[in-house]
Amino acid sequence: MFQFNTIQKGLKGRNIISTEDLSIPEIKEVLSLAKDMKRNRFSSKFTDVLKHKTFLMFFYNPSVRTRQSFEAAMTELGGHAQFLEPKSMRLKTEKSAGETIEDSAKVMSRYAAGIGIRILEDKITKYGEGDWLIREYAKFADVPVFSMAHDKFHPFQGLADIMGLQEYFDEVKGKKLLMTWAHGALARSWCSIQENLLISSRLGMSINLAHPEGYELDKEVIEKTKKYCEENGQEFKITNEVEKGYNNVNVVYSRNWMSPNAYKNGILQKELEIKKSMKYTKWICDSRKMKYTDNAVFIHPMPVDRGNEVSDEVASGKNSLIYEIAENRLHVQKALLALTMC
Amino acid sequence: MFQFNTIQKGLKGRNIISTEDLSIPEIKEVLSLAKDMKRNRFSSKFTDVLKHKTFLMFFYNPSVRTRQSFEAAMTELGGHAQFLEPKSMRLKTEKSAGETIEDSAKVMSRYAAGIGIRILEDKITKYGEGDWLIREYAKFADVPVFSMAHDKFHPFQGLADIMGLQEYFDEVKGKKLLMTWAHGALARSWCSIQENLLISSRLGMSINLAHPEGYELDKEVIEKTKKYCEENGQEFKITNEVEKGYNNVNVVYSRNWMSPNAYKNGILQKELEIKKSMKYTKWICDSRKMKYTDNAVFIHPMPVDRGNEVSDEVASGKNSLIYEIAENRLHVQKALLALTMC
Amino acid sequence: MFQFNTIQKGLKGRNIISTEDLSIPEIKEVLSLAKDMKRNRFSSKFTDVLKHKTFLMFFYNPSVRTRQSFEAAMTELGGHAQFLEPKSMRLKTEKSAGETIEDSAKVMSRYAAGIGIRILEDKITKYGEGDWLIREYAKFADVPVFSMAHDKFHPFQGLADIMGLQEYFDEVKGKKLLMTWAHGALARSWCSIQENLLISSRLGMSINLAHPEGYELDKEVIEKTKKYCEENGQEFKITNEVEKGYNNVNVVYSRNWMSPNAYKNGILQKELEIKKSMKYTKWICDSRKMKYTDNAVFIHPMPVDRGNEVSDEVASGKNSLIYEIAENRLHVQKALLALTMC
Repeated sequence: MFQFNTIQKGLKGRNIISTEDLSIPEIKEVLSLAKDMKRNRFSSKFTDVLKHKTFLMFFYNPSVRTRQSFEAAMTELGGHAQFLEPKSMRLKTEKSAGETIEDSAKVMSRYAAGIGIRILEDKITKYGEGDWLIREYAKFADVPVFSMAHDKFHPFQGLADIMGLQEYFDEVKGKKLLMTWAHGALARSWCSIQENLLISSRLGMSINLAHPEGYELDKEVIEKTKKYCEENGQEFKITNEVEKGYNNVNVVYSRNWMSPNAYKNGILQKELEIKKSMKYTKWICDSRKMKYTDNAVFIHPMPVDRGNEVSDEVASGKNSLIYEIAENRLHVQKALLALTMC
Repeated sequence: MFQFNTIQKGLKGRNIISTEDLSIPEIKEVLSLAKDMKRNRFSSKFTDVLKHKTFLMFFYNPSVRTRQSFEAAMTELGGHAQFLEPKSMRLKTEKSAGETIEDSAKVMSRYAAGIGIRILEDKITKYGEGDWLIREYAKFADVPVFSMAHDKFHPFQGLADIMGLQEYFDEVKGKKLLMTWAHGALARSWCSIQENLLISSRLGMSINLAHPEGYELDKEVIEKTKKYCEENGQEFKITNEVEKGYNNVNVVYSRNWMSPNAYKNGILQKELEIKKSMKYTKWICDSRKMKYTDNAVFIHPMPVDRGNEVSDEVASGKNSLIYEIAENRLHVQKALLALTMC
Repeated sequence: MFQFNTIQKGLKGRNIISTEDLSIPEIKEVLSLAKDMKRNRFSSKFTDVLKHKTFLMFFYNPSVRTRQSFEAAMTELGGHAQFLEPKSMRLKTEKSAGETIEDSAKVMSRYAAGIGIRILEDKITKYGEGDWLIREYAKFADVPVFSMAHDKFHPFQGLADIMGLQEYFDEVKGKKLLMTWAHGALARSWCSIQENLLISSRLGMSINLAHPEGYELDKEVIEKTKKYCEENGQEFKITNEVEKGYNNVNVVYSRNWMSPNAYKNGILQKELEIKKSMKYTKWICDSRKMKYTDNAVFIHPMPVDRGNEVSDEVASGKNSLIYEIAENRLHVQKALLALTMC
């Protein structure tokens, strides 16, 4: 079986709620292991690492990629991931009797080697509530707790993004990223965007953040991103213009996200958000705008809202890394499941 | 581990949407392997063939046998089948934003060794739509795509039928099959019936097809069946009389199916179909009719609508092969999962 | 692989619908194996016992602990548990066409090494119906059938309770148990309570049963419990007073259950039951009442309705065995899955 090095061993038992939970050396070791797992996918080095172990996946929100990749990850490591939908759980809330998070987390820790939670969009009543829930589980659980995407962060997406960029550029330090809002019909949570801003800036990329007025992200995340860029001697700029951010960048990440006013009275105003968003038809990543870049690659966490967030020509073009990054989800998840749970 | 022969090796990577996707020598090799797997069910020859591999099962329609047998098949081959219900998927349609089949299939191919799809009855708006969906997935996926029953075909049922008949008769060539419509309360799709007609005729059986006027099947399938019978020097007859087809046959397959007019304005008229069907109370396979046969065996893909499609006496009689054929589903699926994905 | 002794070997193929299906020597052997499995959880002695085998779990009612612990149990024994929800089954009922239990059970026996069923509360129309359904499956299945909790019994909870008490007291014979009703907002089935009464009395505990008038349990179970107590020279008392039963006991089990009038016209009157129950605010296990005991331990099958069934102070106190017993579910299930199915 694989021998972990000292930094890797330090990850045993750790919660992964954001890449902020990992030091930079730890991120590098995780990505190094993920790349080894990609090259040697079914090698006996890795296939028994979590033999007979159980990972519990709680999907408050449905998912395609996240469910498939986590369940496949556990299968490939010799264990098993249970697919659980909390509609069939009896958790205590203010309004209804049920089990406390403490009792629930304590018992799960007896059965499983780790717990993953996905909660965002319409399953919360305001931004931050999903983050609260995951941290409550982490407080009481005796095993690692993972975010499989929540309102605030999406650590495995952030790691998969960086892994894809490293595969393409070798070194991401000094590379220029445009993170641009796009119009779209899905009113998406901020998690993938914010995770990418944090990890990209920490690892030394410069960042253009572009969005229409009224689509500001979490101030705390923006402040951190700015600080990381400064520490690395890189630029961090915010623009409300649709094309300006494309100039000379190496990477374009174009995606729709909801406005800070998306939740009213505890309910996600999805239709209203979509209607508002769909007016900004110029906010799409297309071949014309890509010409301003330094032959940039296109990245996106998928599912892609083609025709709104990005043109087919760019999404399916030779510089698109979307499938490679989607595959990387599997490998970074395998790496961190192995490191935290074995 | 098991060594495949040349014909068997040729199946690697292949889609199985109908038994028409297999040559006759390939069908024979699949059935030969399935029988070996039945005799040596948990032999180490087979239990590691798909070790750590993932098969994704998309159930647009619910299922008992198909889900249980595919999931058990993957467990017995050392891998794992993920149970996915597309209600929790975000696929792009004309009316709603979502992921394209291309993106979905491309990403799944990164996680899994194969993809199975079940879509029929009320999950489609007209006959042929399920067939279209599966073929779209097959077009874009880089891994094998299987039909786990769709509106048009049901390849694994067809193979299990033939395997059951071979176990009983040794050789099916020259045997006479009555495929008869029956009244019933479930308004079933044509897939099992049509798959059986195609594979039975290809393998040299003669066929009596019996149904009331107004219950005609897919013309293309009927033409092919007729052609296969002719090529094999066998008879193919269609009758609208309820008893005539029983004369001297070796096999009776009695099952309800919907009429060609079952879909109106994109909606399956299930209640109407059932009401119409239930008037034909004479269309049931019972002991009296079985006396006209050459001591025929009774086959059916299950679930059996007892009292409508067939009498208890026949379904539970000594000549009933229903449980044996149901079990064979497991073995033919194991054989083809192994051959296409390993 | 582990060598079973003669008594253990006798369990092969057996149904487990209640602990009444096991002799006292068999119960002791099951618990002995469960303790060994707890001490040596991932030992290679046990991890291949059910390699490549499938256990089918039918959840008519949702569940947290039961699903997680059975699925983890199969993973730890080398096999796989399929999570099935009968909403997606087509079983025959008086009103609708579908498959008979006979056909369903016969086919499942071809695919799986065992079948588990959970059915209680709102999924039945009257007390006893779940018990009937499980026994019907057991009649036709060729593989072991397990109750994963039904209206009448909950064998694995009863075994986990006793295992927890044995771990604490070493010997349960002669220990005094208070089984007390509590008010609560969940209108629970009688299964855990009744199973505990039967197995505790059989193994030689004396029993105080306390509940308000109108919360009587199944007469047959009470008669048996009384008989077992008598046979063991122990006391069995029933009281309608809230505090009296606490005097000098070693174990307190406090839990809400529904009244014998909970079902009206085939429907569980859940709101009415909760309303009625919530008037008995004195019926809660708290520190004040625990002082009357002989430093008793607190047990409960979970989920705990804190603040109604028991105070936080007791549930989370040093004498609470709730998490330990919850964990024991896993081990007794592993033991009996292994013994009956391998």
